[in-house]
Amino acid sequence: MIFPTEKEILEARTRIASYIHYTPVLTSQTLNEKFDAEFYFKCENFQKAGAFKSRGAVNAVLSLTETELKRGVATHSSGNHAQALARAAQLKNIPAYIVMPENAPRVKVDAVKAYGGIITFCEPTLKARELTLERIVNQTDAIVIHPYDNLQVIQGQATSAAELIETVSGLDLILCPVGGGGLLSGTALSARYFSPRTKVIACEPSGADDAYLSFYTGKWVPSEHPKTIADGLLTSLGKITYPVIKENVHEIVTVSEDEIIEAMRFLFERMKIVVEPSSAVPLAAVLNKKIDVKRKKVGLILSGGNVDLNQLPFNK
Amino acid sequence: MIFPTEKEILEARTRIASYIHYTPVLTSQTLNEKFDAEFYFKCENFQKAGAFKSRGAVNAVLSLTETELKRGVATHSSGNHAQALARAAQLKNIPAYIVMPENAPRVKVDAVKAYGGIITFCEPTLKARELTLERIVNQTDAIVIHPYDNLQVIQGQATSAAELIETVSGLDLILCPVGGGGLLSGTALSARYFSPRTKVIACEPSGADDAYLSFYTGKWVPSEHPKTIADGLLTSLGKITYPVIKENVHEIVTVSEDEIIEAMRFLFERMKIVVEPSSAVPLAAVLNKKIDVKRKKVGLILSGGNVDLNQLPFNK
Repeated sequence: MIFPTEKEILEARTRIASYIHYTPVLTSQTLNEKFDAEFYFKCENFQKAGAFKSRGAVNAVLSLTETELKRGVATHSSGNHAQALARAAQLKNIPAYIVMPENAPRVKVDAVKAYGGIITFCEPTLKARELTLERIVNQTDAIVIHPYDNLQVIQGQATSAAELIETVSGLDLILCPVGGGGLLSGTALSARYFSPRTKVIACEPSGADDAYLSFYTGKWVPSEHPKTIADGLLTSLGKITYPVIKENVHEIVTVSEDEIIEAMRFLFERMKIVVEPSSAVPLAAVLNKKIDVKRKKVGLILSGGNVDLNQLPFNK
Repeated sequence: MIFPTEKEILEARTRIASYIHYTPVLTSQTLNEKFDAEFYFKCENFQKAGAFKSRGAVNAVLSLTETELKRGVATHSSGNHAQALARAAQLKNIPAYIVMPENAPRVKVDAVKAYGGIITFCEPTLKARELTLERIVNQTDAIVIHPYDNLQVIQGQATSAAELIETVSGLDLILCPVGGGGLLSGTALSARYFSPRTKVIACEPSGADDAYLSFYTGKWVPSEHPKTIADGLLTSLGKITYPVIKENVHEIVTVSEDEIIEAMRFLFERMKIVVEPSSAVPLAAVLNKKIDVKRKKVGLILSGGNVDLNQLPFNK
């Protein structure tokens, strides 16, 4: 099994440094006092294109050879990876072919267009997305950049935890949301290389608990009919991410939809930051005492801030 | 005329330092590129109790003598000053008597209660608020802390711009919202003392343009029937704040309600931060080219983040 190495993650940091934000870390005295712990929020919602996905996409594009760059890049995505890849391609002035389901939110479509992405719409099924992408790739010879099951993407996502570990020393725990596992596997590898005594705990919506099941049964379980407002966490673990997670993650906990919404409200109301539902999943685990945090230094990765402000889930 | 001195503002900084946040400064490459300028957002929305008001309230309470402290403090306010004063009083374990209109938003009432404030409700008129406060003061002998027309409050509010000037050197402009003028007069004095070549421009909703009129007619004009979503900017300039502003502010510009809402949306959507409408007023002036910012270093003070998330004005 091939994992991103320590050296590769360090190289990724250097490679992407001028194209992404070294994101700030926020704290909350209210939370610290309430749980007798120290919390550190790594704000990928302030990242370029609004999510950690910019790290992996930029690293993947900048890792291509000159010959490969000429072919352009392609992916199917309705979410943050689409924007991040379009932006990364724009940095190198190469085409990004993005397959999006025809029901993708207008705001996401507009963002991809604003970064110069060339969009092909398809029916909103995984099958149609894959077939359409295959057709585009046949036509254009573009290089497919998978949203998470790609070594360069994982190296890029690993840089968020690497920065957090650099900013805050002596972390006992890092809490990280899990969808396809790109951010989580990168986080787990950065912890292993740069702060070996830090345990990584993944946090997942119970309505999309394939990582939880895969982790505890020891057998890859696909994400079937997932249902959660954390729209970044719907996908299954990948062929690369699953083994990395199995070996390097300490624990996976799940949270309910109401718990996610409650945590999201806390982040907006008390911490005054805009986050997408996926970002709130680790805090939901803390608020609902799924994790023992007492007297611990706890990092939480806020994955992004791309949320439809017209449909905030706590506005009921 | 008595102004807060440089020494008093420096003393205020020391006095309040352990009780307030040294707030972060955010930037936006999108804005910098669009306007060929450098913008620095001083984030008082991340301040204790969610607004700059904590600075003035803490400084006022900590400036009281032991004998005065025993009497407790009082004010009438439906907004951020109420929370800030209740919190400041709680730090010294003294009573805070807060007169609030009976139609004050529940979230504000709850916040004051959470900080241990003793609330007296009254009819929602200025007359009723003043009479009720007078009655409470007669009963309790509490010391009234005016929300802005108070030297210690102004010294405290001045510390935000003092920090901004310390964080970002060589600012050409500081843009600041104006309501009663506590934040603005503190900002103007800090600029005068700590960065004399920085010009301070006040930004005001055209629906509550008493400061604009007072400034340009040279005669104090009260705020009568103000109408704006920037609920922190409804009040008239005070006996102390008006002369400070007249002498130390360079310019006042006004913006429309639509312009405020557009700027607020930008701060949420692009900068991923939660702000109240008053915070968006300076950015509204920039976005609508009311101020010449080209090739300038421009500080903007974001006054606070206490906004009803169920009623975001751009959700139409």
